[in-house]
Amino acid sequence: MAYRDEVLFEEKVFKDPVHRYIHVRDRVIWDLIGTREFQRLRRIKQLGTSFLTFHGAEHSRFNHSLGVYEIVRRILTNFKDQPNWNHEERLLSLTAALLHDLGHGPYSHSFEKVFNLNHEEFTKQMILGDTEINAVLSRVSDEFPQQVADVINQTYHDKLVVSLISSQIDADRMDYLQRDAYFTGVTYGHFDMERILRVMRPLNEQVVVKASGMHAVEDYIMSRYQMYWQVYFHPVSRSAEVILSRILHRAKQLNHEGYQFKQEPTHFLSFFKEDVSLNDYINLDETIVMYYFQMWIDEDDPILSDLCARFTNRRLFKYVDFDSEEDPNAFEELKALFEAVGINTDYYLIVDSSTDLPYDFYRPGEESMRVPIYLLKSDQSLQELSGASEIVESISGKKRTDHKLYFPADIIKQLPNDDQKTRIKQLLGMKPNI
Amino acid sequence: MAYRDEVLFEEKVFKDPVHRYIHVRDRVIWDLIGTREFQRLRRIKQLGTSFLTFHGAEHSRFNHSLGVYEIVRRILTNFKDQPNWNHEERLLSLTAALLHDLGHGPYSHSFEKVFNLNHEEFTKQMILGDTEINAVLSRVSDEFPQQVADVINQTYHDKLVVSLISSQIDADRMDYLQRDAYFTGVTYGHFDMERILRVMRPLNEQVVVKASGMHAVEDYIMSRYQMYWQVYFHPVSRSAEVILSRILHRAKQLNHEGYQFKQEPTHFLSFFKEDVSLNDYINLDETIVMYYFQMWIDEDDPILSDLCARFTNRRLFKYVDFDSEEDPNAFEELKALFEAVGINTDYYLIVDSSTDLPYDFYRPGEESMRVPIYLLKSDQSLQELSGASEIVESISGKKRTDHKLYFPADIIKQLPNDDQKTRIKQLLGMKPNI
Amino acid sequence: MAYRDEVLFEEKVFKDPVHRYIHVRDRVIWDLIGTREFQRLRRIKQLGTSFLTFHGAEHSRFNHSLGVYEIVRRILTNFKDQPNWNHEERLLSLTAALLHDLGHGPYSHSFEKVFNLNHEEFTKQMILGDTEINAVLSRVSDEFPQQVADVINQTYHDKLVVSLISSQIDADRMDYLQRDAYFTGVTYGHFDMERILRVMRPLNEQVVVKASGMHAVEDYIMSRYQMYWQVYFHPVSRSAEVILSRILHRAKQLNHEGYQFKQEPTHFLSFFKEDVSLNDYINLDETIVMYYFQMWIDEDDPILSDLCARFTNRRLFKYVDFDSEEDPNAFEELKALFEAVGINTDYYLIVDSSTDLPYDFYRPGEESMRVPIYLLKSDQSLQELSGASEIVESISGKKRTDHKLYFPADIIKQLPNDDQKTRIKQLLGMKPNI
Amino acid sequence: MAYRDEVLFEEKVFKDPVHRYIHVRDRVIWDLIGTREFQRLRRIKQLGTSFLTFHGAEHSRFNHSLGVYEIVRRILTNFKDQPNWNHEERLLSLTAALLHDLGHGPYSHSFEKVFNLNHEEFTKQMILGDTEINAVLSRVSDEFPQQVADVINQTYHDKLVVSLISSQIDADRMDYLQRDAYFTGVTYGHFDMERILRVMRPLNEQVVVKASGMHAVEDYIMSRYQMYWQVYFHPVSRSAEVILSRILHRAKQLNHEGYQFKQEPTHFLSFFKEDVSLNDYINLDETIVMYYFQMWIDEDDPILSDLCARFTNRRLFKYVDFDSEEDPNAFEELKALFEAVGINTDYYLIVDSSTDLPYDFYRPGEESMRVPIYLLKSDQSLQELSGASEIVESISGKKRTDHKLYFPADIIKQLPNDDQKTRIKQLLGMKPNI
Repeated sequence: MAYRDEVLFEEKVFKDPVHRYIHVRDRVIWDLIGTREFQRLRRIKQLGTSFLTFHGAEHSRFNHSLGVYEIVRRILTNFKDQPNWNHEERLLSLTAALLHDLGHGPYSHSFEKVFNLNHEEFTKQMILGDTEINAVLSRVSDEFPQQVADVINQTYHDKLVVSLISSQIDADRMDYLQRDAYFTGVTYGHFDMERILRVMRPLNEQVVVKASGMHAVEDYIMSRYQMYWQVYFHPVSRSAEVILSRILHRAKQLNHEGYQFKQEPTHFLSFFKEDVSLNDYINLDETIVMYYFQMWIDEDDPILSDLCARFTNRRLFKYVDFDSEEDPNAFEELKALFEAVGINTDYYLIVDSSTDLPYDFYRPGEESMRVPIYLLKSDQSLQELSGASEIVESISGKKRTDHKLYFPADIIKQLPNDDQKTRIKQLLGMKPNI
Repeated sequence: MAYRDEVLFEEKVFKDPVHRYIHVRDRVIWDLIGTREFQRLRRIKQLGTSFLTFHGAEHSRFNHSLGVYEIVRRILTNFKDQPNWNHEERLLSLTAALLHDLGHGPYSHSFEKVFNLNHEEFTKQMILGDTEINAVLSRVSDEFPQQVADVINQTYHDKLVVSLISSQIDADRMDYLQRDAYFTGVTYGHFDMERILRVMRPLNEQVVVKASGMHAVEDYIMSRYQMYWQVYFHPVSRSAEVILSRILHRAKQLNHEGYQFKQEPTHFLSFFKEDVSLNDYINLDETIVMYYFQMWIDEDDPILSDLCARFTNRRLFKYVDFDSEEDPNAFEELKALFEAVGINTDYYLIVDSSTDLPYDFYRPGEESMRVPIYLLKSDQSLQELSGASEIVESISGKKRTDHKLYFPADIIKQLPNDDQKTRIKQLLGMKPNI
Repeated sequence: MAYRDEVLFEEKVFKDPVHRYIHVRDRVIWDLIGTREFQRLRRIKQLGTSFLTFHGAEHSRFNHSLGVYEIVRRILTNFKDQPNWNHEERLLSLTAALLHDLGHGPYSHSFEKVFNLNHEEFTKQMILGDTEINAVLSRVSDEFPQQVADVINQTYHDKLVVSLISSQIDADRMDYLQRDAYFTGVTYGHFDMERILRVMRPLNEQVVVKASGMHAVEDYIMSRYQMYWQVYFHPVSRSAEVILSRILHRAKQLNHEGYQFKQEPTHFLSFFKEDVSLNDYINLDETIVMYYFQMWIDEDDPILSDLCARFTNRRLFKYVDFDSEEDPNAFEELKALFEAVGINTDYYLIVDSSTDLPYDFYRPGEESMRVPIYLLKSDQSLQELSGASEIVESISGKKRTDHKLYFPADIIKQLPNDDQKTRIKQLLGMKPNI
Repeated sequence: MAYRDEVLFEEKVFKDPVHRYIHVRDRVIWDLIGTREFQRLRRIKQLGTSFLTFHGAEHSRFNHSLGVYEIVRRILTNFKDQPNWNHEERLLSLTAALLHDLGHGPYSHSFEKVFNLNHEEFTKQMILGDTEINAVLSRVSDEFPQQVADVINQTYHDKLVVSLISSQIDADRMDYLQRDAYFTGVTYGHFDMERILRVMRPLNEQVVVKASGMHAVEDYIMSRYQMYWQVYFHPVSRSAEVILSRILHRAKQLNHEGYQFKQEPTHFLSFFKEDVSLNDYINLDETIVMYYFQMWIDEDDPILSDLCARFTNRRLFKYVDFDSEEDPNAFEELKALFEAVGINTDYYLIVDSSTDLPYDFYRPGEESMRVPIYLLKSDQSLQELSGASEIVESISGKKRTDHKLYFPADIIKQLPNDDQKTRIKQLLGMKPNI
């Protein structure tokens, strides 16, 4: 039997708290899960620093990747009797779903920004390069690795396959909303996925949803909106993210300046140089990063040491709402005051912004080509979701941005009492008597 | 206001997936949570190696510690109007609940066995030694640290306080059963805690349960029984535990032999010597352990390298049921065969046993003085639980033991085909044609 | 001890699937639950005809009334330490919560329209008239019954008390959304009530919500919106409601015409005359109504018999979307065609409309004075909800109406095949070949 | 296409709170659900009088019947690839599952005892007699009605089909345990049905369970045990049942004596004569029974009136544990005292017993041939469940009986204070000062 068609002697089942059970029957999928690159995802948290806000959010990308696979598996089971679905794409779809986050590193957001990386590029390298993953995929066929990479990269010719894991209502989003809600414990993030799966229909280039399921989709869009503002953009998690990115900056800067580390940043060197090999990338998981941060608490550089201690022991920055347009001088004044009392504003006075676009529909000429969600009406015509749903219409295309200013309130409290301190506290909205 | 009576300006609330919300009002509790020793519990998994079996079980002891605190807080709210409860013990009870697992290290079970440690001893040291925890506790009163240590050590004079966190139906067990069920996703582990809390009554030396709540307690005992055999003693998790303990043995042995490590086992040295300072102990969390294991994959010693790769990439040992009494010669024969084909049986042929005693009642003269659960009848008399419940009676005092033999099936499969291999596979119940 | 202060020897607890437990400590509450008027609520379904769409929705108003009481009890427990709350109003608030739906009859909506009744008027009479309820309330004080009636009637002087059960985020709505979601099994209707209760604050005339809880309130508003359109206005339930109201019309009409019933409509006579005594009203619960409907299946009048059989055996009308403005002549043509083939359009061709106003804020000069929801900001100022929430703003004050046309597809299918039938089917969007 | 193979144009889906969705694709099933005999099950509560203890338990047998159908449907989906399953039996299995409770009347337990009825006999008649059900079944084939009756009656030749709905781990039990837990709101009754379904295997005469699923089955058995004692045999529900059966006795007795009813017991006459036609049986649902009970409150006979008022308004009897063997004279003395103060002991002093046999295994020679549950081991041998599970073994074959004595405490409290009253209260364990 061809390797691509091999099934396990007995179906393997993973107990999953979100989908109850995850079923694996294909040997290819089973072998992929066993590779070291896939197992590495156990050492990368799904929600980065969110566990410092929501203590339950300690789950890994390994969890999520299995979940996305399982949702696609269920979608395809429903598609079995559908006319527009090409059954030859089944294994490719399942594989792409399983591997879509393979290239994520630790705290991707900060790492990518500080070191100018792109996790999608590394996903591609892990699939096409000299890896255990590639060895498994190549056994399927010579073209298979490239096809998998194309689906994840959204360049695969069959857009229907692409849309299963990359669209506004794909298996990726459906898994993470539910999973992150489950582990954080928030009540948002729940929607009737079983119903959505039942009303999904394959169509030329995209999965569409029967109009009778519109309210379930509305509920999903609202879940997404709530999860973004309640969980993903929570200002406390962003405080940790701010500190994290300052640590990376500081270490890079110190290395650049020739600072002598007690704990040499061996694993980081190629990151500092922005010339990261696939192997270096694979080796730098969250365990390694956290090891360095804990070691660096003992460094002589007071900024690196302090920031690492803050991150490790959760002594985060406080924050205030901040809109530079409302009061353009305040920030400059604060900066001057900070420097005057000896606080380095590159590391201790940081503006952070979050932006979400909860649902977007296609507008010709725009760069971002987010494919909208279409409803399939009983007369077989299509209607764009926001045209049918007032709720969705009300939030479509509306970017919402939140700006916050982060600072170490503990350091400010310990300043000697003088006019500068009073003014700083006033500008930051800190209570005067504390 | 005395520090012990200080309350926060506004109650702090943690979102918790198991208890929905965890409420903190006392400044002492809030300050304890902020210490580096307590934050360190985020880097120690509640269920050790179980996440390799149940991928959701990635939650930390930090989670669990907050949960135990919250349950005790709820119990004491119910006790407010009860005659036998001494309200002066409130802060002590909450503090002991929060800190009861403070001294746990990474993968405690294996570490304690291999390095001859005792996590309870370290809990005591963290409470009484030169720590941030001790600094907070000492602000309450000079005696407070010792009192907290006594409650956790079960030597405190007020046995009622002790029983809140150390009895057969304490806050510790009630939290971990529910929490571990939640994160693994199994359906066992659920019981009606709200009802149990409502029928708990403080009595001289112990918390008892109103007889009307007997069935809820039965359900709790059964949950415990199921969780032990379905989750805690799962043979796959034990396989990972076996490998882990072999790694520790091997590293210790190599160090003893003067082996030159590429990655020096700095953090482990005092463990190898079985002379661990409090600070060494605190510094060795799971992040550090996993860092070394990942580094040691590149060591020259083939056994250490192989075992570390197995643990990191989840290439576990297979197992068979094994009862040395049934077939005393089989093990010796296997051992000889393994050595003959060049497999070191100290590291690759391991017997592991698990034993549980689901519920025990007091039997005079026995060493283990597990306090039984008493039901409070409407005539105010007490009845021991197993005397009232057939279900509990049926499992009381019955030790159940499970023996398994662990071995690397992958290595055996790669042996050259000969009589030795055939015999090994036969003895291990491996399919002949694989 | 005064009756109003009496507590039960031991707290009574009801197991409730929605709130887990309902706690009763006041003797007054306990005695009210035991009255025949309150027990009668067991014989009136909470959701009327919805059980014919959602088979789980067989729960009664008894259920819901206990739930509203429990929510108010929890709110007041939270209010204990709040400055603006007058503790003297506790028993009054609990009592009004328990009794707010007391005057509901069977299928209130249809009965009230057909017989020109007002359930609020009967609630008042049950509280003030010669009832077991009144006997209990009068034991509290002479004024107590009137006070309870005033709170339910929204005329009580303390608007804060009124707002607990009559506002846009009151205990009534919070219970029924969750309860109806639970029994129907839909995924909508869930929101974080525990959080909302925790951020509620009593203020002069109204309960307000701390701004930090805004997203929980948004979620509640969205739940409400979804429940209305997914459950409460479900077109199949409305089909049953249409038939029900036609039965009542027909029986009234027949009685008016002097028709000789086999089963005399004894219980209905005063309803037909629109002169209903309190006792007649109390006696007509759903059991009695359904008894008559089942008996009337055997009546000689073919319309009454057919409609009663339809309702009893769930042979409902089909429906199509219908907008009289779009095609004003279609309805007239249909009517003529129905009459031409011998179908009485007063009973068999019915337009039904549903309208919802998901959230409304105060607009001066408008008659409907729906009190808006206010957020309490950290600077103690108030902000109207739709001013803070884009989502809520998007649906505020927007009436949405849905018109459907109901008809007996089965009868039409059995018509002889001719042009009239073809045209009817065409107008009603029925498939031609059926 | 043959009627038996017809599928609906589009699958119909029922929203179900327990199984989420119930799927119907076969036209035969859809048509059966639409019959008046099946719709009648909406007017018969699944748990009889239990709603007077657990107010959520207002769900009907209609609910449960759909649930059993759905579970069998899922089992058969899993059986698709199994060698021992005869696919020709699919429709028969689904139909028997759907209809297995068809013959249940209102409060079956009491009715059957008082009027000497057998609901299984009426199920048979409804399937084979002149009913809408029979009309549908006969369209499948001439033999189909008899086959369905045989499966339900456990006389069908293919015991595998029978065991799906009649065994110790059948779809019937699995549905009602979960459903009754859901609606009552108790935490018992939950088990991992998805896992049990996955490990079920068809074998010659019975469904067996793979040994790896043993713990899930244990959990199911324990759920059953807990539900029996916590819900089904709850002493308060039994109090209502006692009153109900006394009402039936009294009405029968009065009719026998020639008593002139104000509300003639028309629907009951053939029941009194124990000569009930199928039509009489079908017509007497709970609505009708409750109508009579409410009417009979106004009867002149004080016993009938009082008992009907008690049942309608939930003024139940109190109870004490009662063991006639422990104190054989107490009951006789009570009886004499009751009669002496003018209380009719036939109606007001009732002993009621409940007995459960949680799990039974086959013992040769015994009459009750309850088929045990077998585990299928990996070597394909079978092991009886209680041989593998200590927990199950501990409760196997152990009958547990609970005797209670029911009496009207309210009447006794109102007796004039004298020695007789004092003695009665003493014997009944009533507090002296009440």
